[in-house]
Amino acid sequence: MTRYAVEARTTGDGSRGLDAFATIGVVGATGAVGAEALAILAERGVHRDRARAFGSARSAGSTVRFGDGTLEIEEARPESFGGVDLVLLCASSEVSRALTPRAIEAGARVIDNSSAFRQDPDVPLVVPEINGALLTRETRLVANPNCSTIILLLALEPLRRAFGVREIVVSTYQAVSGAGAKAMAELAAQAEAFASEKAIEPQVFREPCLFNVFSHNSPVDSGDGLNDEERKIIAESRRIWDDPGLAISPTCIRVPTMRAHGESIRVTLGRTATEAEVRRAIEGGTGLSVVDDRCSGDFPTPLKASGRDEVLVGRIRPDPGAAIGREGHTDRFLLWVCGDQLRKGAALNAIQIADRLGEVTTWASPGEI
Amino acid sequence: MTRYAVEARTTGDGSRGLDAFATIGVVGATGAVGAEALAILAERGVHRDRARAFGSARSAGSTVRFGDGTLEIEEARPESFGGVDLVLLCASSEVSRALTPRAIEAGARVIDNSSAFRQDPDVPLVVPEINGALLTRETRLVANPNCSTIILLLALEPLRRAFGVREIVVSTYQAVSGAGAKAMAELAAQAEAFASEKAIEPQVFREPCLFNVFSHNSPVDSGDGLNDEERKIIAESRRIWDDPGLAISPTCIRVPTMRAHGESIRVTLGRTATEAEVRRAIEGGTGLSVVDDRCSGDFPTPLKASGRDEVLVGRIRPDPGAAIGREGHTDRFLLWVCGDQLRKGAALNAIQIADRLGEVTTWASPGEI
Repeated sequence: MTRYAVEARTTGDGSRGLDAFATIGVVGATGAVGAEALAILAERGVHRDRARAFGSARSAGSTVRFGDGTLEIEEARPESFGGVDLVLLCASSEVSRALTPRAIEAGARVIDNSSAFRQDPDVPLVVPEINGALLTRETRLVANPNCSTIILLLALEPLRRAFGVREIVVSTYQAVSGAGAKAMAELAAQAEAFASEKAIEPQVFREPCLFNVFSHNSPVDSGDGLNDEERKIIAESRRIWDDPGLAISPTCIRVPTMRAHGESIRVTLGRTATEAEVRRAIEGGTGLSVVDDRCSGDFPTPLKASGRDEVLVGRIRPDPGAAIGREGHTDRFLLWVCGDQLRKGAALNAIQIADRLGEVTTWASPGEI
Repeated sequence: MTRYAVEARTTGDGSRGLDAFATIGVVGATGAVGAEALAILAERGVHRDRARAFGSARSAGSTVRFGDGTLEIEEARPESFGGVDLVLLCASSEVSRALTPRAIEAGARVIDNSSAFRQDPDVPLVVPEINGALLTRETRLVANPNCSTIILLLALEPLRRAFGVREIVVSTYQAVSGAGAKAMAELAAQAEAFASEKAIEPQVFREPCLFNVFSHNSPVDSGDGLNDEERKIIAESRRIWDDPGLAISPTCIRVPTMRAHGESIRVTLGRTATEAEVRRAIEGGTGLSVVDDRCSGDFPTPLKASGRDEVLVGRIRPDPGAAIGREGHTDRFLLWVCGDQLRKGAALNAIQIADRLGEVTTWASPGEI
C-alpha cells in the first residue's frame, strides 16, 4: 500500500504529456480498441499530421476515421516504426510480440494493450491513477491491463488507500466489445435477425449473444476451472496493487451489451468503516463518478457508462451478510460498477499512460534526455 | 439441517398428486406465470374440463391457451371459487390478499405466487425438494417463494445437506420475465426498434433493456440500500432453510434475457470438501442438471435453461481466493447457475407444491378426510 502512495491523478483536459511525442502510431487501427484510441487522440487535440494508423497487410491502403478526417492505413511490420515516437499496440498478443522489439530499437515508446507482457517483471503494468509512479524517463514498454481489472481496481482504489482491501468477490457483466468489433457486429446482427424472424447463427461466440448471457468465452483450465479472464483479474490485480496475497474470487460472464462492463463487487476492507466513510472515499476517488440515487433508482448502467471516461459507481451499501458493529461499522461492502470497456478499460487507459509518460519525459531537464 | 432431512423428490412424470384436485383454477391467466402454469397443467395431463382460468374484469370473456385448446377467462372475484379445489394465484400481492380468505372458506387449497404471505409464520414457504415435508393434509395456503431464491437454494441444497452452508455471496442476472409479460414484450420491441433504427422508449422499466443491464427495478430502501429483491432472497432463504443466521450478500441485476435467470454464486460451506465431493453432491441433487464441460466450454446459459424444469449448474470450481488445504480441501466454491424463471422460479414450483399437497391428501386414509 505504501509503494504506490503517489497522489492519484488523471491526464487532465490538456493532455500536455502527449505533446512529448511528435508522431503517434496506432497498430490495429481497424479494430474496436484501435479506432477508439484514434478517436481519443483526435479529441485530445493531436493533429492529423502527427497520427499514423497501422493494420494488417489486408487492410493496408484503406482508411480509418481520425477526428473530422481520415488516415490511410499502413501495413504494420517490425520495420514500420522509424520516426514514430509512441506506438499504441491494439492488436493480438502475437502481433505485440512480433512488433515490440524492433519498435523499441527504432526509438519508440510502446504501450501494449495485449496480455503479451503483463506478467513480465521488467514491464510495468499500469493504471495511472494507481501506480503511474512506475513510469519513468527510462520506461520504453508499458503493459495496459485487462479491461475488467482496470475497472475493478479503479473503483476500489480509494477504499484500498483509506482502509486497505483484504478480499474481493466479483462477478462481471462484460460487454461484447472485449471480443472485438466483429463481436459487436454479431450482437447487432442478431437483434436485426430477431426482428426479421430469421435464425440467429453465432459466429464469433460459441453461444448466441442476443437475449442470452454466458460464461466468458476465454478458455477454461481443465485443472482449476478458471477461465483466462478470471486468471487475468487475479494475477493483474495482485501485480498492480503489489499485493501478491490478495484474495480475489472472480466469475466472468458475458452479457449482450455493446461496450461497457458491469461488475458486482463485494469488498472486504482491511479495517471497519461506516457507509458514510466508504461513500466519501469513493466520491473523492480519481476517474470515478458516483451514480447512486436510491430514491429515483438512478444507478450505473453500461449505457450510461458508454463513451464516458469515468467509471460509474453505485449501489454502495454495507453487506447485509456481514456483522454490523457499533455506529454502523463493518468491514464488508457491496458495490455495482460500470465502465466503458473501450475507453478506461482499454484505449483511454493506454493514452493516459502515454500522457503520463510524456510528462515525465518533459519534466526532465533538457540535458538529461 | 435436520428439520428438512426428508428425502428430496420431484413430482415425477405422473403428477398423480394433481389428481386429488377435481378442479384447478389459475388466477392471472393472461400473465406470464399464469400462462406457464396452464401450460404445465396441460403437459401433466390435466384435462381441459378440470381447468379454469381467471383474470381481471377487463380480460374476462377472452380466451387463453390450454394445451391444444383454449379456456374462457372468468373474472376473479372473492366469490368466484365455489367448486374449485385448488387455486394457483399468479397475480399481484393485492389480488392475493383480496381473494385468498374467501377461496379458502369455499374449500379450496391455495398456492400463492406473490409475496403476500411469504413471511407469515402460519403459511409454509415451500420448495418441495427442500422443505416439502411442511405440507400436510391440514395445509390450506402455501406461499411460493421468490424466483431467484428458489433457483439459488435448489442449486445449493445438496451442498447444505452434505456439508452445511455458512455464507452465500450471489449476483443475479435476472430475465425480464420476472417483471411480467409486458416486460418481455418491451425487450422484444426494443430489439425490433433497434433493427428499424427507431428510438427506444422504455415503458415498463426505468432503463432501456436492450444492450443494457441495470440494478433490479424493485424499490431501494433509503436506509440500508437493499432493493426488495435482495431483501426477499435474504429473508426467504433463511426461512426455507430454517437458518435465521445465514449470511447472504445479494446483488440483483436485470439483464436483457427473456425468461431464465443466471446466478453467480460464491458459497462458503460448513466444513471443507474437495471439488470432487462438491461435484458429486450436486450431481446427486434433485431438480438439477450439471452442464460443466471445461474442454468444449459448454456451461449453463439462460437460453439452455429456458423451458427446462431443471436448474442448470456449471463452472463448479474451488474459490481461487480461498485457502486450499491438503488434498485440495477448501470451504469455498464458485458456481454459475441458470434456471427458468417462469418454470422452477414460479409456475413449476407452484405445481410441484400442488402435486405434493395432493399426494399427502390422497395418502391419508379415506375416513380421515
